[in-house]
Amino acid sequence: MIVLGIDPGTANTGYGVVRGDGVHSVSLVECGVIRTRPRDPLATRLKEIFDGITELITRHRPDALSVEDVFYAKNVRTTVVLGHARGVALLAGAQAGVAIHEIPPAEIKKAVVGTGAATKEQVQFMLTRLLRLKSVPQPSDAADGVAAALACLMAVRTPSLEALRVPSATSARR
Amino acid sequence: MIVLGIDPGTANTGYGVVRGDGVHSVSLVECGVIRTRPRDPLATRLKEIFDGITELITRHRPDALSVEDVFYAKNVRTTVVLGHARGVALLAGAQAGVAIHEIPPAEIKKAVVGTGAATKEQVQFMLTRLLRLKSVPQPSDAADGVAAALACLMAVRTPSLEALRVPSATSARR
Repeated sequence: MIVLGIDPGTANTGYGVVRGDGVHSVSLVECGVIRTRPRDPLATRLKEIFDGITELITRHRPDALSVEDVFYAKNVRTTVVLGHARGVALLAGAQAGVAIHEIPPAEIKKAVVGTGAATKEQVQFMLTRLLRLKSVPQPSDAADGVAAALACLMAVRTPSLEALRVPSATSARR
Repeated sequence: MIVLGIDPGTANTGYGVVRGDGVHSVSLVECGVIRTRPRDPLATRLKEIFDGITELITRHRPDALSVEDVFYAKNVRTTVVLGHARGVALLAGAQAGVAIHEIPPAEIKKAVVGTGAATKEQVQFMLTRLLRLKSVPQPSDAADGVAAALACLMAVRTPSLEALRVPSATSARR
């Protein structure tokens, strides 16, 4: 199963493509950021985000699209502009006919670390460990995209594996 | 000049197509609402809005797309979801290569009635008058789309016509 995780934003939209081969292994296929220019009109930036995600879907043919479900930001204007980016991300998935999962930040943290109150650093530590990476995916928006993909993959695992996952999550909280 | 005005919303996206032949006459070509089902997933609803607007652009080939620039709503969740609808509306314009104008509600009111503090009823009265309609476009979301289109058309008029427009706006405030 291949999952494309998206952390939407108008300036930087982070993404991560994660593959889960059966039950024991998950691996990172690709991650990165779709950057847009602050001086470009909003519509142009939204088109770049949409085209970028559509290109990723075409190239990786994911079984699911996992989009961080953010409904707040520092101020209302930022939150609404973020809604625009999420809108075109969801549209890209709907147009490609990919299953879409919207996952709240706390559930992403819970799936990856074991607790919804985990810090950004704990999430980055765990996804680096789970994916056996040499370092944390950079920039942090890319890591957030990977976390969204991983959380979606974790959620479809069997309950028996939930039990296996918790001890390693605990170790991350030391 | 043909302008497609959009009042975005996830449940009802109002639209109005207005034509301005030179300087003296403006006329309504079409108006209506793109409705989506509340029980459908957000991504499905966004696709319906996007497809609906794209179809309108293909059919009317407008010179400009005028989108109401709303950055608030009753609560944050509603505001963000509204952002999603605006996002796909702007994307539809960007994909079709149409000039996009984002106009704040107060400027729409000012362009149509003459004051940014105009009520919804005053806007509806004036657009019915300016377009020589027998009644107010229904439902109100459609009227909001028409107002957005009209405001955009008004904004590109010559300054001398601004002077002509104000007296009739005054009469609407009686």
